Amino acid sequence: MRNLDAFFSAQSIAIIGVSRDTMKVGHIIFRNFIDAEYSGKVFPVNPNATLILNKKAYHSVLQIPEKIDLAIVAVPAEFVPIVVDECGKKKIENLIVITSGFKEMGNYALDKKLLSLIKKYRMNLIGPNCLGTFDSYTKLDSLFLPRYRLKRPKEGGLSFVCQSGAVGSSILDMATKEGYGFAKFISYGNAMDVDESDLIEYLGSDEKTRVICLYLEGIGDGRKFIDIAKKVSKKKPIIAIKAGKTKEGSRATLSHTGSLAGTAEVYSGIFRQTGILEVSSLGDMFETAKMLEKCMQPKGERVMVITNGGGYGILATDATINNGMHLAEISKESKKVMKKLLPAIALENPIDLLGDATTEGYKHALSIAINDKGVDIILLVVLYQTPLVTTDIVDIIIEANDMKKKPIIVVSAGGEFTDVLKSTLEANNIPNYTFPENAVRAIRHLVGYYKK
Amino acid sequence: MRNLDAFFSAQSIAIIGVSRDTMKVGHIIFRNFIDAEYSGKVFPVNPNATLILNKKAYHSVLQIPEKIDLAIVAVPAEFVPIVVDECGKKKIENLIVITSGFKEMGNYALDKKLLSLIKKYRMNLIGPNCLGTFDSYTKLDSLFLPRYRLKRPKEGGLSFVCQSGAVGSSILDMATKEGYGFAKFISYGNAMDVDESDLIEYLGSDEKTRVICLYLEGIGDGRKFIDIAKKVSKKKPIIAIKAGKTKEGSRATLSHTGSLAGTAEVYSGIFRQTGILEVSSLGDMFETAKMLEKCMQPKGERVMVITNGGGYGILATDATINNGMHLAEISKESKKVMKKLLPAIALENPIDLLGDATTEGYKHALSIAINDKGVDIILLVVLYQTPLVTTDIVDIIIEANDMKKKPIIVVSAGGEFTDVLKSTLEANNIPNYTFPENAVRAIRHLVGYYKK
Repeated sequence: MRNLDAFFSAQSIAIIGVSRDTMKVGHIIFRNFIDAEYSGKVFPVNPNATLILNKKAYHSVLQIPEKIDLAIVAVPAEFVPIVVDECGKKKIENLIVITSGFKEMGNYALDKKLLSLIKKYRMNLIGPNCLGTFDSYTKLDSLFLPRYRLKRPKEGGLSFVCQSGAVGSSILDMATKEGYGFAKFISYGNAMDVDESDLIEYLGSDEKTRVICLYLEGIGDGRKFIDIAKKVSKKKPIIAIKAGKTKEGSRATLSHTGSLAGTAEVYSGIFRQTGILEVSSLGDMFETAKMLEKCMQPKGERVMVITNGGGYGILATDATINNGMHLAEISKESKKVMKKLLPAIALENPIDLLGDATTEGYKHALSIAINDKGVDIILLVVLYQTPLVTTDIVDIIIEANDMKKKPIIVVSAGGEFTDVLKSTLEANNIPNYTFPENAVRAIRHLVGYYKK
Repeated sequence: MRNLDAFFSAQSIAIIGVSRDTMKVGHIIFRNFIDAEYSGKVFPVNPNATLILNKKAYHSVLQIPEKIDLAIVAVPAEFVPIVVDECGKKKIENLIVITSGFKEMGNYALDKKLLSLIKKYRMNLIGPNCLGTFDSYTKLDSLFLPRYRLKRPKEGGLSFVCQSGAVGSSILDMATKEGYGFAKFISYGNAMDVDESDLIEYLGSDEKTRVICLYLEGIGDGRKFIDIAKKVSKKKPIIAIKAGKTKEGSRATLSHTGSLAGTAEVYSGIFRQTGILEVSSLGDMFETAKMLEKCMQPKGERVMVITNGGGYGILATDATINNGMHLAEISKESKKVMKKLLPAIALENPIDLLGDATTEGYKHALSIAINDKGVDIILLVVLYQTPLVTTDIVDIIIEANDMKKKPIIVVSAGGEFTDVLKSTLEANNIPNYTFPENAVRAIRHLVGYYKK
């Protein structure tokens, strides 16, 4: 396995190409380092400046008097070989090249030159044509996007390996708003050296990473990918989306990251074979990731639906069946208990606690579902709009989940009042979804991951 | 067509069954009327009280000294016939019966009794077992959910006919948070008298309603539904979701609103035949509704994708093809203009303006797409995270949209900063989506509606 630690925890970093122009990529990266809680040292390099943002600048990495763990390169494409050669001489072993204008623009000569330097100096390279890396624990953050436009996520268990910088950054931004926590983020662009497989292997052994999300346009080395993905997916879930599955989309990948997209069937086959969970949209990816990060392994695929909104019970039922799973059958034992405690209409699956449902009713239903051996997964669709559902419903759900008997998933359907309760549940490791269909789609992946 | 005006603009309303207990349905409804900007008169009825919330209460509707346009009934099921009989004697022509406990609970005798009273007095009845109606223009609001838990939506062009109260209310709540505007909302429950078809017909002629959304568990009178839906869907789009399409889900509808669900195929057939757009989830429903409310008719289905995020261009392309539409082919003329104004890589569809895209670049690309006759629909995927996309991109998109040449749809992928810009676009009639897949799914319905 390649040692990629420096990309996430380097203690001394050179940023090569730090312009004084505040709109330029190098400048923004440097500013982000200064503003962040990053604990290491940062050295800006600019051949024409001696002071940038009040910090001493160096004309070349060769002038920096200390050892450098990682260089971030943001100079124009034609200068990349020159500065990389200097990095080699300076014995810098790890490089992120942000700069674009390589094979994705048809510039194969420049591509070859950079590659030969990497080989010569035995460097690890992420990029070129990439956005860089982000680690929410160490705060090492080489993303060239201003923080006021792109909020950085809090600490968490998701890591995202993303070929496209734009997709990666906007998803990061969106996921941050939704309260997702991340461990590591890597936009690896053209994958000239470090590729998707190296990153998956590295994250497979990363303690902070619990779920790996993958946005792929192409795979460089199929054999290597299959070997690594097979191993890693046994340790932790890998969720992937493949862009460019249609003929038209595939054409577009070529000019984007220079990837040969391959056919949809080939990719789906590889994913199945390696135990990777394939999703069909970015929305699905993160809804699935949340489920796999927060939920324990279910014993099977029999779903118990509990709700105080009859319509939602029906929609959740439809979704369960349409996703190839089953409604749990409640035991006679449970039915006896239910008869005493719940309204008559509730004695089936879905348990419909009706519009006058109480928090107490939810407590009973949850306890029945947790104790019934015919139930593998509990899906609650809670309407917090009705007056008799008190806000301590949240505590009851959290207590039930803390027993760690079965995965509990909640659909919290509503607006602002609902959002408050939803956030509390999420903070306590209970994944929440807006619609039953979304929850069930993610449950299918939870079941699928542990089934294989 | 039945005259249902009173359900939305009654000037004098009796609320029958207003308890002094603040948690009871009747009380909440009455409180909601007092708190709202509703301009008519409201009379609380309670056999045991003379003052409720500091307002004079009546022991029976018969004691109210004025003409009553609408009565809202929230007494226990067994008392419903008694108070409805009194309403008849008082010559009240319109009733909402909130109370449940009729055929959905197997109580057919009570059902029959209520129905015979309705016939006898020739009343219009919405319910029983329903949530009531809401009109955002008149502020007539009979929903029995407290406003602090369920925010009411602003004025707008969507109307939502919803058999399930829980689905209706939570969707209203959610849509309100998302900034959707509504005209009318009706939760019609068991549909004993006024049914889905009557409501569709009424909304078809309602000036405020531009798009009708429909959550159905069953259809009472198939022939009537087909006749009316055919007529109305020619005037304005109807978007429907059918709950209980699986065998298991269908069983659940019976105990919910007493509906016989029928097979999935039958329903899909009816929807196709009548020009109703069928969606498969509540999320899709409102994403589609927004598109049809805000967008003009496209001339065809050739989509032009413009983005500054290459990966999103690929995903949007995949989604376009997977939804059975086409990428627009740019004319030679346009290509010439593009060559002068845009980066080399951008000369195809998707137009990829790259990570260093400027607002100016977007302006050029938009203008090319608007003027090219080969383009029917413009899909922008804007990443606002990159520094050279200035915030006046919003003005440029709005100006282009105001020319009313082609529908313009935006994917605004991001977090808080993005949300600010997104709201401005939405307020200017440009629908925004979080992911390209969602936008394209809604575009397919836009195309589908005008194609038929």
